[in-house]
Amino acid sequence: MKILFSFLPKPEQQTNLIERFPEAEFIFQKPLDEETLKSADVFVTYGEDLHASHIENADRLKWIMVASAGLEKMPLKEIANRNILMTNVRGIHKTPMAESILAHILSIKKSLPTVAENQRKGEWSNRVKSSELFGSTALILGPGAIGGEVGRILQAFGVHTIGCNRSGKISNYMDEMTSFADLKAVLPTADIVLSILPSTDETRELLTYKHFHCMKRSAIFMNFGRGDVVKEEVLVRALKDECIAHAVLDVFEKEPLREGHPFWSMNNVIVSPHMSSHSSQYVIRALDIFSRNLSAWMSGIEKMENIIDLEKGY
Amino acid sequence: MKILFSFLPKPEQQTNLIERFPEAEFIFQKPLDEETLKSADVFVTYGEDLHASHIENADRLKWIMVASAGLEKMPLKEIANRNILMTNVRGIHKTPMAESILAHILSIKKSLPTVAENQRKGEWSNRVKSSELFGSTALILGPGAIGGEVGRILQAFGVHTIGCNRSGKISNYMDEMTSFADLKAVLPTADIVLSILPSTDETRELLTYKHFHCMKRSAIFMNFGRGDVVKEEVLVRALKDECIAHAVLDVFEKEPLREGHPFWSMNNVIVSPHMSSHSSQYVIRALDIFSRNLSAWMSGIEKMENIIDLEKGY
Repeated sequence: MKILFSFLPKPEQQTNLIERFPEAEFIFQKPLDEETLKSADVFVTYGEDLHASHIENADRLKWIMVASAGLEKMPLKEIANRNILMTNVRGIHKTPMAESILAHILSIKKSLPTVAENQRKGEWSNRVKSSELFGSTALILGPGAIGGEVGRILQAFGVHTIGCNRSGKISNYMDEMTSFADLKAVLPTADIVLSILPSTDETRELLTYKHFHCMKRSAIFMNFGRGDVVKEEVLVRALKDECIAHAVLDVFEKEPLREGHPFWSMNNVIVSPHMSSHSSQYVIRALDIFSRNLSAWMSGIEKMENIIDLEKGY
Repeated sequence: MKILFSFLPKPEQQTNLIERFPEAEFIFQKPLDEETLKSADVFVTYGEDLHASHIENADRLKWIMVASAGLEKMPLKEIANRNILMTNVRGIHKTPMAESILAHILSIKKSLPTVAENQRKGEWSNRVKSSELFGSTALILGPGAIGGEVGRILQAFGVHTIGCNRSGKISNYMDEMTSFADLKAVLPTADIVLSILPSTDETRELLTYKHFHCMKRSAIFMNFGRGDVVKEEVLVRALKDECIAHAVLDVFEKEPLREGHPFWSMNNVIVSPHMSSHSSQYVIRALDIFSRNLSAWMSGIEKMENIIDLEKGY
């Protein structure tokens, strides 16, 4: 059994795999080599290098492991036609993202930038505005793996969590649920409005000026999903009109955010350059999932995790 | 029954008390009026205005409620001699302090000051150092009400918690315990070393240069207890020698921290000017405890919370 990687784990990570699975032949080769792929049974990729033409010639390929959450660049149709199994690393971002989201929330609540500014000035000032997270309400748009992890931790801080998805169907770690259609009814109750929505026909420009107008003037809006959930010009206007107090943005309509964009200099906006999911643990976790799946695969695919439904694309 | 306050809750908070306890006569008077105290059954104070001489003349006084955690300025002996009941608001600081402590930890882990600095420069840089809290180890010196609350939340983030007190006796939300005597053995394992110790003969200068030398070079040291747990000159040297990576200080040997003190300008030190316990909820919570205790007192003192042992002083 030949297993081809088109990225290079650290030497000790490679050695671990080789030692753990002596029956497999591992090839670590970057970039993807088409000739080697032809004879591979398993292909492990970050998901940006495989084209439809590769699939045609990869006669022995039975399983593609994508070490990423996004599958937008994968030739799903061709993979489905060839009946190749595909898995990903769904959920791998939840820990770093939940930590980043909580970091920003608490930093704002405790005015850490003002504390730092006072320190720079050598000013002993303990009259800095400091509010509590405890007892507040968070609305989470898109309560999946990441949203659930954020919800779990928010609940530990004594926050009331409201999940919002298309159907209003119950989700983990949400005290209550609502649907996109009923969004406006809950917006006035939320101290934190967090989007972790993917970009789909239903989520694109889901939020309009009217939505921001419904929010608390003290609300923190956070976008850690995709930049097109609200038009940036709408968000800029809502912030200038003080519909809300803060925006923390990890994603943007166009990345990198262009020079001179108003967000850079607005003092109620935090620009986090699409980094909330970064983690030194990423490859380690991806290889953990891969190793568990490789063991499972050897004893039958029904025990594997994160199998992609190629029709739905997730 | 006459209840005298020597501080002034907000008008609606006063009204709430009066309506909830129609059988009591409330007097809100600042500063403390000695004449009124003579005829009061209950006295509610922040704990800094009552002197021994007051007690002599307060013939009807049966219960003193101190709306603060510190009792250093109370005439404990005279209160004990007169057999007056005393209660305080122990635990009232745990929520804002735990939130402040987590805010600082996560801000450092996610390099939020660098993210802000890059934004000021208009620089899209997602190569900022970001490490995870998950899987790390925190050592908590003084795991009481506040330390336990910090431990509870840290555990929700997947942190291993080690409590450290005089005896090594088990404490809430600590995965393991150690004692002051065995401190050096666990210091090399801790990513976060947090002191919430009060100032006593046993804690004063408990930490020496050798202790910092035992810590991880990546460790974050946090002092949210009392400033004299380590000599500041020792801490400055340990930071300059890079024994540890960060210090977050809410308390100091002398407060306010003097102008020109090295801490102000050290870029691996955060000066939080004794503000971590600040909360807009303080009086609300203190009055909640008082109201519960007043109801309980009317039906028998065995149901009251936070009764002070006047011999021990806590």
